[in-house]
Amino acid sequence: MPLSGLKVVDLTRIIAGPFCTQLLADMGAEVIKVEAPGKGDPTRQQGAVVDGVSFYFAQFNRNKASITADLHTDAGKAILAKLIEQADILVENYRPGVLAKMGFDQARLEALNSRLITCSVNGYGSSGPYADRPAFDFIGQAMSGFMSINGQADGEPLRAGPPISDLLAGLYAAFGVVTALLGRERSADRRGQRVEASLCNSLISTLAYFSAHYFATGEQPTRTGNDHPIVYPYGLFKAADGMIAVAPSNDIFVERFLEAIGLVSLLEEARFSTNETRLKHRDALRDLINARIAAHEVHHWILILNQAGVPAGRVQTLDEVFNDPQVLAQDMVLATRCGDVDVNVTGFPVKLSATPARLRRPPPILGEHTDDVLERLGFSAAEIGALHDAKVI
Amino acid sequence: MPLSGLKVVDLTRIIAGPFCTQLLADMGAEVIKVEAPGKGDPTRQQGAVVDGVSFYFAQFNRNKASITADLHTDAGKAILAKLIEQADILVENYRPGVLAKMGFDQARLEALNSRLITCSVNGYGSSGPYADRPAFDFIGQAMSGFMSINGQADGEPLRAGPPISDLLAGLYAAFGVVTALLGRERSADRRGQRVEASLCNSLISTLAYFSAHYFATGEQPTRTGNDHPIVYPYGLFKAADGMIAVAPSNDIFVERFLEAIGLVSLLEEARFSTNETRLKHRDALRDLINARIAAHEVHHWILILNQAGVPAGRVQTLDEVFNDPQVLAQDMVLATRCGDVDVNVTGFPVKLSATPARLRRPPPILGEHTDDVLERLGFSAAEIGALHDAKVI
Repeated sequence: MPLSGLKVVDLTRIIAGPFCTQLLADMGAEVIKVEAPGKGDPTRQQGAVVDGVSFYFAQFNRNKASITADLHTDAGKAILAKLIEQADILVENYRPGVLAKMGFDQARLEALNSRLITCSVNGYGSSGPYADRPAFDFIGQAMSGFMSINGQADGEPLRAGPPISDLLAGLYAAFGVVTALLGRERSADRRGQRVEASLCNSLISTLAYFSAHYFATGEQPTRTGNDHPIVYPYGLFKAADGMIAVAPSNDIFVERFLEAIGLVSLLEEARFSTNETRLKHRDALRDLINARIAAHEVHHWILILNQAGVPAGRVQTLDEVFNDPQVLAQDMVLATRCGDVDVNVTGFPVKLSATPARLRRPPPILGEHTDDVLERLGFSAAEIGALHDAKVI
Repeated sequence: MPLSGLKVVDLTRIIAGPFCTQLLADMGAEVIKVEAPGKGDPTRQQGAVVDGVSFYFAQFNRNKASITADLHTDAGKAILAKLIEQADILVENYRPGVLAKMGFDQARLEALNSRLITCSVNGYGSSGPYADRPAFDFIGQAMSGFMSINGQADGEPLRAGPPISDLLAGLYAAFGVVTALLGRERSADRRGQRVEASLCNSLISTLAYFSAHYFATGEQPTRTGNDHPIVYPYGLFKAADGMIAVAPSNDIFVERFLEAIGLVSLLEEARFSTNETRLKHRDALRDLINARIAAHEVHHWILILNQAGVPAGRVQTLDEVFNDPQVLAQDMVLATRCGDVDVNVTGFPVKLSATPARLRRPPPILGEHTDDVLERLGFSAAEIGALHDAKVI
């Protein structure tokens, strides 16, 4: 696998950081997640926990090993130092400065291992006036401008349902780490460097044509819900048994769409003959289309519209998504087993043909690999026993 | 830079693919974008166009070179073949199968260049029953289940404002390409492979604790707008001059929040003393908090709340975002110049300390580098002239 043999020290918790290290683990890296003894990653106790197994934790921690170490103690810090000495990558999502206060500032990290790539996933970046502020997906969505363009036209600014700033920051961090690894591999001195991704910067990068429009005109974009700001028909329509999303982005697609649903003659009426007039008579056209769409089930329309080359899809619930033949064909549901519990997690979003990501090991039980990892680091059985007795591990 | 000297043939257009190749270009790759003569990427004519310069195009095409080649002609295909022979990476976002129909199936690509990494950014993946369907960000949002959990509790399923499935798929593709490059660099045979990312799979990967909850319980998640499904207070509050987002995710943070705004005594009232009772009396508590928050401006509260360690931020408009001191300190606005037009684009979301991304060249004018690139491929001045005359380039 592309990252086989590369060692990651994983100090992350919750979502953004664990998602980053999971992406590396999926590609073959050996990820050792360091957790607090007795408690571990807070997500182990959150969400739906079945017979002691958190599906939330499982979603972000497959393919990793888990060790416990109390990093508030000198003995715990000594374990971390040994891990760092033989690692390629260290990933953390503390607030900026916290790792340094624990005794591992950049100079110490470099002294321990000049080849080390360190990665921080944080709220706002580690420099600038807000660097020390606590961050959170919801706050990242507010501060980045994302919320200002999400929501209904007549509603308030709205966060995205899923924690997308966490996920984007984790993915950017993984991209940055692999890029830095490739840079190291291709360099003469093989030195590591520091990689950073933040919730706020990550979401700013998604503003796309909204930021472009703002830069060009100085105008604030408006929220438009499911409607396209300048094209109609476009959006959601109600079939007999559910909703469909249809995206005819220009006149050619609009004609194909209306043709496919038997309403192409509407284009001959003055009120619907151009995009401009259709925007003016949006509600009337919506009602006419909905009246037609309501006559059949979603399945009927999706086939007809896709055959006509009109981008269209069912507005799927999670139940529909995870039973969808395409989603299953893409292996986007993976079955694993934590202890005695069968657990499903979502699949690999990136497909590599020769060296595909694989589920190599289930999400770990807290501290499952502590003794094994410490032994490989050179700790004796007696030392490991003493660390257990002292509750350091 | 980490990707210096690596050559990318870029057949992408619109957003998802161009975002992928821009991420590679930002990290130092030499990206040659191949566009249709006379027209180019459709985004060159879309959005706010100032003196012939599309800010939308600029947002996704900095650091690239542009050549024109009509890939419907044999002469255009011969140019593409030469580009492929000396490239490390080819990225395309055609519908699956289109590149093969153009004469460049996987076997031909490997015959031209066994080291080539090919990357497809598509709608649903290149295998499975929907592989051939036309896709679009809006449809990806519907089909992936994302829309089913975005929106107000009493509203309809809602797409995210920004085209996040395009952006996520582009970012996943870039992560996949760099991972495959690293795998190639570390392998004995140095062979390339095929990388794929899709709009639908990318969004499925963002379902996070929603998919985990569904897998654990079989229950469909519900939309909750800006409210946290199981914690209150949490959400948006109205200050004198704007809205603030506050995310106290547990009892400790709730106490800090109410303490900071002078309402901690409310916790002594039976109706607000536990999270459970607060959820029951959500509206009453919201009104009391809003009455207090309305007494001061956003700026006042953000300082006080962050000092108290409560995650909080202004709900920023784009105007506020791009004048925010933190956003500017993070270099998230970059000034460039296309022809005679000053153009701003958003900055680099991933920060590398030793080899940072840089703005090395402005978004290219259509075909700006055609002659130069063809000359380096070995075409004579006479041949280049003939290709111009035949409108192949």
